[in-house]
Amino acid sequence: MSVNFDYQRPERLGMPEAVLCEGKSFQHIQDILSELSERNDYPVLFTRLEQSQFEQLPESLRQRLDYDELSRTAVLNGQLPKRWGKVAVVTAGTSDLSVATEAVRTLTFSGVETSLVADVGVAGIWRLMERVKDIAEHDLIIVVAGMDAALASVMGGLVGKCVIGVPTSVGYGVAADGTTALNSMLASCGQGIVVTNIDNGFGGACAALRILSMADSVFYREDG
Amino acid sequence: MSVNFDYQRPERLGMPEAVLCEGKSFQHIQDILSELSERNDYPVLFTRLEQSQFEQLPESLRQRLDYDELSRTAVLNGQLPKRWGKVAVVTAGTSDLSVATEAVRTLTFSGVETSLVADVGVAGIWRLMERVKDIAEHDLIIVVAGMDAALASVMGGLVGKCVIGVPTSVGYGVAADGTTALNSMLASCGQGIVVTNIDNGFGGACAALRILSMADSVFYREDG
Amino acid sequence: MSVNFDYQRPERLGMPEAVLCEGKSFQHIQDILSELSERNDYPVLFTRLEQSQFEQLPESLRQRLDYDELSRTAVLNGQLPKRWGKVAVVTAGTSDLSVATEAVRTLTFSGVETSLVADVGVAGIWRLMERVKDIAEHDLIIVVAGMDAALASVMGGLVGKCVIGVPTSVGYGVAADGTTALNSMLASCGQGIVVTNIDNGFGGACAALRILSMADSVFYREDG
Amino acid sequence: MSVNFDYQRPERLGMPEAVLCEGKSFQHIQDILSELSERNDYPVLFTRLEQSQFEQLPESLRQRLDYDELSRTAVLNGQLPKRWGKVAVVTAGTSDLSVATEAVRTLTFSGVETSLVADVGVAGIWRLMERVKDIAEHDLIIVVAGMDAALASVMGGLVGKCVIGVPTSVGYGVAADGTTALNSMLASCGQGIVVTNIDNGFGGACAALRILSMADSVFYREDG
Amino acid sequence: MSVNFDYQRPERLGMPEAVLCEGKSFQHIQDILSELSERNDYPVLFTRLEQSQFEQLPESLRQRLDYDELSRTAVLNGQLPKRWGKVAVVTAGTSDLSVATEAVRTLTFSGVETSLVADVGVAGIWRLMERVKDIAEHDLIIVVAGMDAALASVMGGLVGKCVIGVPTSVGYGVAADGTTALNSMLASCGQGIVVTNIDNGFGGACAALRILSMADSVFYREDG
Amino acid sequence: MSVNFDYQRPERLGMPEAVLCEGKSFQHIQDILSELSERNDYPVLFTRLEQSQFEQLPESLRQRLDYDELSRTAVLNGQLPKRWGKVAVVTAGTSDLSVATEAVRTLTFSGVETSLVADVGVAGIWRLMERVKDIAEHDLIIVVAGMDAALASVMGGLVGKCVIGVPTSVGYGVAADGTTALNSMLASCGQGIVVTNIDNGFGGACAALRILSMADSVFYREDG
Amino acid sequence: MSVNFDYQRPERLGMPEAVLCEGKSFQHIQDILSELSERNDYPVLFTRLEQSQFEQLPESLRQRLDYDELSRTAVLNGQLPKRWGKVAVVTAGTSDLSVATEAVRTLTFSGVETSLVADVGVAGIWRLMERVKDIAEHDLIIVVAGMDAALASVMGGLVGKCVIGVPTSVGYGVAADGTTALNSMLASCGQGIVVTNIDNGFGGACAALRILSMADSVFYREDG
Amino acid sequence: MSVNFDYQRPERLGMPEAVLCEGKSFQHIQDILSELSERNDYPVLFTRLEQSQFEQLPESLRQRLDYDELSRTAVLNGQLPKRWGKVAVVTAGTSDLSVATEAVRTLTFSGVETSLVADVGVAGIWRLMERVKDIAEHDLIIVVAGMDAALASVMGGLVGKCVIGVPTSVGYGVAADGTTALNSMLASCGQGIVVTNIDNGFGGACAALRILSMADSVFYREDG
Repeated sequence: MSVNFDYQRPERLGMPEAVLCEGKSFQHIQDILSELSERNDYPVLFTRLEQSQFEQLPESLRQRLDYDELSRTAVLNGQLPKRWGKVAVVTAGTSDLSVATEAVRTLTFSGVETSLVADVGVAGIWRLMERVKDIAEHDLIIVVAGMDAALASVMGGLVGKCVIGVPTSVGYGVAADGTTALNSMLASCGQGIVVTNIDNGFGGACAALRILSMADSVFYREDG
Repeated sequence: MSVNFDYQRPERLGMPEAVLCEGKSFQHIQDILSELSERNDYPVLFTRLEQSQFEQLPESLRQRLDYDELSRTAVLNGQLPKRWGKVAVVTAGTSDLSVATEAVRTLTFSGVETSLVADVGVAGIWRLMERVKDIAEHDLIIVVAGMDAALASVMGGLVGKCVIGVPTSVGYGVAADGTTALNSMLASCGQGIVVTNIDNGFGGACAALRILSMADSVFYREDG
Repeated sequence: MSVNFDYQRPERLGMPEAVLCEGKSFQHIQDILSELSERNDYPVLFTRLEQSQFEQLPESLRQRLDYDELSRTAVLNGQLPKRWGKVAVVTAGTSDLSVATEAVRTLTFSGVETSLVADVGVAGIWRLMERVKDIAEHDLIIVVAGMDAALASVMGGLVGKCVIGVPTSVGYGVAADGTTALNSMLASCGQGIVVTNIDNGFGGACAALRILSMADSVFYREDG
Repeated sequence: MSVNFDYQRPERLGMPEAVLCEGKSFQHIQDILSELSERNDYPVLFTRLEQSQFEQLPESLRQRLDYDELSRTAVLNGQLPKRWGKVAVVTAGTSDLSVATEAVRTLTFSGVETSLVADVGVAGIWRLMERVKDIAEHDLIIVVAGMDAALASVMGGLVGKCVIGVPTSVGYGVAADGTTALNSMLASCGQGIVVTNIDNGFGGACAALRILSMADSVFYREDG
Repeated sequence: MSVNFDYQRPERLGMPEAVLCEGKSFQHIQDILSELSERNDYPVLFTRLEQSQFEQLPESLRQRLDYDELSRTAVLNGQLPKRWGKVAVVTAGTSDLSVATEAVRTLTFSGVETSLVADVGVAGIWRLMERVKDIAEHDLIIVVAGMDAALASVMGGLVGKCVIGVPTSVGYGVAADGTTALNSMLASCGQGIVVTNIDNGFGGACAALRILSMADSVFYREDG
Repeated sequence: MSVNFDYQRPERLGMPEAVLCEGKSFQHIQDILSELSERNDYPVLFTRLEQSQFEQLPESLRQRLDYDELSRTAVLNGQLPKRWGKVAVVTAGTSDLSVATEAVRTLTFSGVETSLVADVGVAGIWRLMERVKDIAEHDLIIVVAGMDAALASVMGGLVGKCVIGVPTSVGYGVAADGTTALNSMLASCGQGIVVTNIDNGFGGACAALRILSMADSVFYREDG
Repeated sequence: MSVNFDYQRPERLGMPEAVLCEGKSFQHIQDILSELSERNDYPVLFTRLEQSQFEQLPESLRQRLDYDELSRTAVLNGQLPKRWGKVAVVTAGTSDLSVATEAVRTLTFSGVETSLVADVGVAGIWRLMERVKDIAEHDLIIVVAGMDAALASVMGGLVGKCVIGVPTSVGYGVAADGTTALNSMLASCGQGIVVTNIDNGFGGACAALRILSMADSVFYREDG
Repeated sequence: MSVNFDYQRPERLGMPEAVLCEGKSFQHIQDILSELSERNDYPVLFTRLEQSQFEQLPESLRQRLDYDELSRTAVLNGQLPKRWGKVAVVTAGTSDLSVATEAVRTLTFSGVETSLVADVGVAGIWRLMERVKDIAEHDLIIVVAGMDAALASVMGGLVGKCVIGVPTSVGYGVAADGTTALNSMLASCGQGIVVTNIDNGFGGACAALRILSMADSVFYREDG
């Protein structure tokens, strides 16, 4: 299968170039990697690239990639220039770290300064209270949580900044597929929380990029 | 339809005698009321008795009943003797008050001292923090909450006492029927929270009665 | 029932003071209105106030309210000071106007300049294409759509600005309750689209306010 | 298990003879293949034949089959005579190619001229716009799409030809099982789009065959 | 609200101009009717216009409309020119007649010859067998059925023509909302059956119009 | 784990002794087999015993068992005495044979004469019509069908005998887990069809045994 | 609408002639009644005829009908001849009586001796234990229960006769629509319980008629 | 990843220290074990530790752990001091033993005297009746049951003590994921039964610990 990339898209929308590996055959992934690895000036992020797939790649390609096992992401051709804005990615539990790290890696790749605040779920609310002041100093907060996802509601009540909820499929029984976390965030008693698909750390990061790009308008109009 | 009551059941299980009016015809409710109103010594609680039904009853029956519109409950023949234990019924929002009051009225009818702590949902966590010490002095806590029901998880992390979650059908969209509140409580990151059916304030109160009856064992064995 | 308002909350979070009337008794709504109408300097938004409820209010209260039937919103004590930012609220069909107008009214009340772009659903994609340039000049786009909600995905591919999807319960059969529109937006092939609960025009507007408040950080840090 | 074929069915209904291998034991598939391979004049299509199953077949059978890994289809005894009509099979993303190719292979096997137009999902609407004129020149369009399946609605608004939607199980979270794509197509704002079961590329092709057979009536009545 | 019609659309897509009244306010419907009634040469179909709404219209508008209570449809400004093709609309039970008649009225309005074959559900298979030959002489068959919707599968096995299934919300318990009928048709053991949304008689008719328009290609290419 | 059998139960209820192996550990299954194999006069049926489990058993136990791979059933200590009644087990497709054979083996083990009529699904209704007279001569009919399960409805309209529907998990997409087949049978337009859990061939056979035992009452009362 | 009855059907299948009024227009019901009331020798049962509909009928028709409000059934032209067999209809609670009475009335109309055993739900298992011996003397047991429907499982373990479960929509929250009762019966730990659609008392009775007709075979073959 | 334990939490809430291994990487589990094994005085319970994971641990760690395969639990550093109260854990079938043993092991680890009463499901109600008196002598009853979970309702009607229902995912078809057992317990006709998430034996035990801690209040207040 020939690869047919639209090299202008990142510029047009301001989104990073990203390849979702899930649902693609190994051959297809390898073809894409081969083509893109020939363009040193075109940074690309690969998401949901399983470790077993990474390890099957030829040594030459593997060496070109900055691969992270926890988030299943790989970066090719370096990262994008630094952009305005600071983002906090906050998780309820350690099992949410895989999704949270996908968000952190996407933002860092895109040039955004990002902090990871792990394990501040509401079952031990004091852990969150100790960190709230730090978190509130960021421009935007991504809350990554599974099960009851109560952290999103509490965060929305503590901080007036934009809160993006990323529900995770952590848990079992009624929680297992992340639907409860998703619905809990959507039905949150906290005003103005917005939500992405389950386990979509990449999507949460892209939403942050769209929002942070608003700063350009501010500068522009201030200048004007 | 003749009425066929099992007058020994309350004694056998220690549960209050209660008649669920929902799903029964008005004629049937009136027949039950007529028979029971002839036994002054047999206190009975009627639940889910709509105001419109109450108002259709003959004046003589209405005067015998202590009716509460918010909880749709009516008490006949006075309340049961005082029992050991103090219960806090805690609500997230004002829309949860109907279900919460059903629980309060059931417990008060059953002789249990009960406090209502309203409107301490986690979107404004400071409201809860101000009340936590008071709440923790009760023997058992019933949390009544709809939408994301995050209050149950937070409470379970703040207090080591028994926490019974009663999800409510408050909200709309993904929340409307209470399923999200129910699943959120069941999947709670707080350890050992137990849950009843949606809007089942009466059931939450009955669970409390079962639990408080444990005190009798304590006394008994201490005596022995 | 006494009314217990937290008059500092709007300042703390930067959200408008709002009262959700759905799920509250008429008496309760009237009590809240009476108390708040005594404070001329405290603007409040009432959402989901049915026209039949509005018409039952005493003449003196009705005259104090700016009521809109389509969005079921009422404004008391004037609107908030003008804030930075321009928002476009875009709808797929005319049946989405009720929810869209709730968003428009919430933003206007909060001091944000807001445009309504109605009836540009993708079944007639040329209608959207004619308006894209205008829409893209706003700082943030709220897409209000029911049924297949395909407008959110198309918009996300045309514009790099923040896109908030508000699914509506418009439609019947598999669409009727808005779940398909919600899931379609969440599973969107457009990167970085964020979503609110079904029919939650108010929530979409609050999310916009959280995001636009980011501009303050920009100014502040530029100054610093 | 003996094989009991109804060799007259294809002629009666005008549908191709096809064997769904999913849910059948390997032994059963092999028995069917053995019997049918003895009839050179009876073309048969095998669907959902896994590569691992194909590779376990005896060399003699494998050589008789035209097997395609991507679509998991195999053709035995050549293809059917050419029929009137041209079909476009259009996909939103590369992950939809497996299902789309099942449709293409079924149509080609059945004698229908078929074009595959891949990767024109609405997140980059310009890709679709460049191809619309070509697509519209076909007699019938099969849209294969997962996740939000917005392509079906957009296509239905651009072209007046018959549009058959085949939802796919591509995606994760709320999208993963294809239900969102299915419901989105069924609730489409585009008028008169019809839909098949999830991942049913074969079914979409069969529907096309039923529809194209209408041309015979046209000729017949024109002649008459 | 001003009315903003796209008078070129019917010609562009070959679909009839239709206004879905469900979900629109009465005022909005009346505005649309007023504008369109001034254009004698522009035939329009109104669907899901409740009888109570029709009766509230001014006498002058009512007289202009050909209203049918069973299907809740109204025709303004006469019907469209006759088109090629004959359609059979077949129902399982008498309760499916409302949806079936919406399909029949839409097709008749659009100039297509249409037969209604009612009450041939499979619980009495002989009723269907007596009519199969007649039904098979049509160019396209719309099967309208609720509950188990088994009629669609049986029809698909008896006739090689295009079969469009329109599931209905007839029934109660597990059937009530039409989901079982919908899924049963989608999972049908009959090859190549296509399906619309629940109760969407209008959509089934529009699909038929798209398909019948294929005849134009046949003529055109035969001529060419 | 010691084995604690209730050897009187089969006699009390007239049901065969059966052990469901699914959900039990291999060690537990082996313990039960060892104990029961010591009682030659106590026939037992093992259901859902996977072939891989069977093959791990010691040779001595394997030789005692009559194992059938398709139905995953094993019989120990011979079959039960012959009982009154003849049952037809009818399947829609070949993929339903596994479940159907579980029913046939359970009935045969229980002493009931049973016929298997395979592959008479309604997509080719003539196959069923040829067999109806034979089927109707049985005392009871078990219909085993997946996907749309239309066979149950058609059978119920053709035959006045008891029809027990056993839905199967055959199919994919909306059909895959058997829920559509289950609901379709429950919502059947055929009067008086009764249904078991999905894939529960054993349960369908047990229901037949309960029903056939009615014959004993007939004899008894005739005698009396 | 003309009425087109198949007067031979009852004889063919041995089922009673029954008209389901739900989903039919009042005019249609009245037409059917008028035609059938002219045939004195043709007994018919009307199900789900609302009291408000019954009361709108002309006096002459009302006098011909034996109407029962609780079960919403009406009998025209007397009942069918007495048939072999005795059925027990057993209910868990008083709210199940409406559905249970539909079953009782259908069976009595069909000439079968039927006993109603009400209010023996398992929350007070002693009530059931007192009646088990009586119940077991019937040839067939119909268990009508909502909420957890545990009565069906307990009954199946106590009695070896055929047990038909009819789940009801009694209850609220997770129980309200009867799905929990339905699934609980289908997943019952009692072997060989069969189930009908929710609230389908008529269907349960028809299943009983199919089963009791088996007695004819017994007599016939004994005679032979 | 460094381990960051809150060693004061057990004391604060009175809950045992427990580590849920499900959803954590093997490396993470091993890190936690290493750190905690250095503190001899800090007893910890590990839940959902798969046998295959346990066996991969270094010999030195394995020897420190008291591992149980059935419940997938491991205890490190001995158990907690004895506490007041006796708990009965009651199961419906042998397949529920895995979940039940998780509850028993958690309670025993926490110093609570616990009895396991297995295999008393209601399909053979006499098995339960023989044990009821013993069970009722405990202070609290945990009912572990899958499929229809009818045991919880029956138990709630027989005993006035606190009944905690733990639904299990035992069963197949409509039962398989435990949702039917969960809903059946929540909708139970037994008053005051409370419920945990599916398969959550640990959660049931924690709820018991919260409840039994109430005894401390009794002693304290009696003393006071």
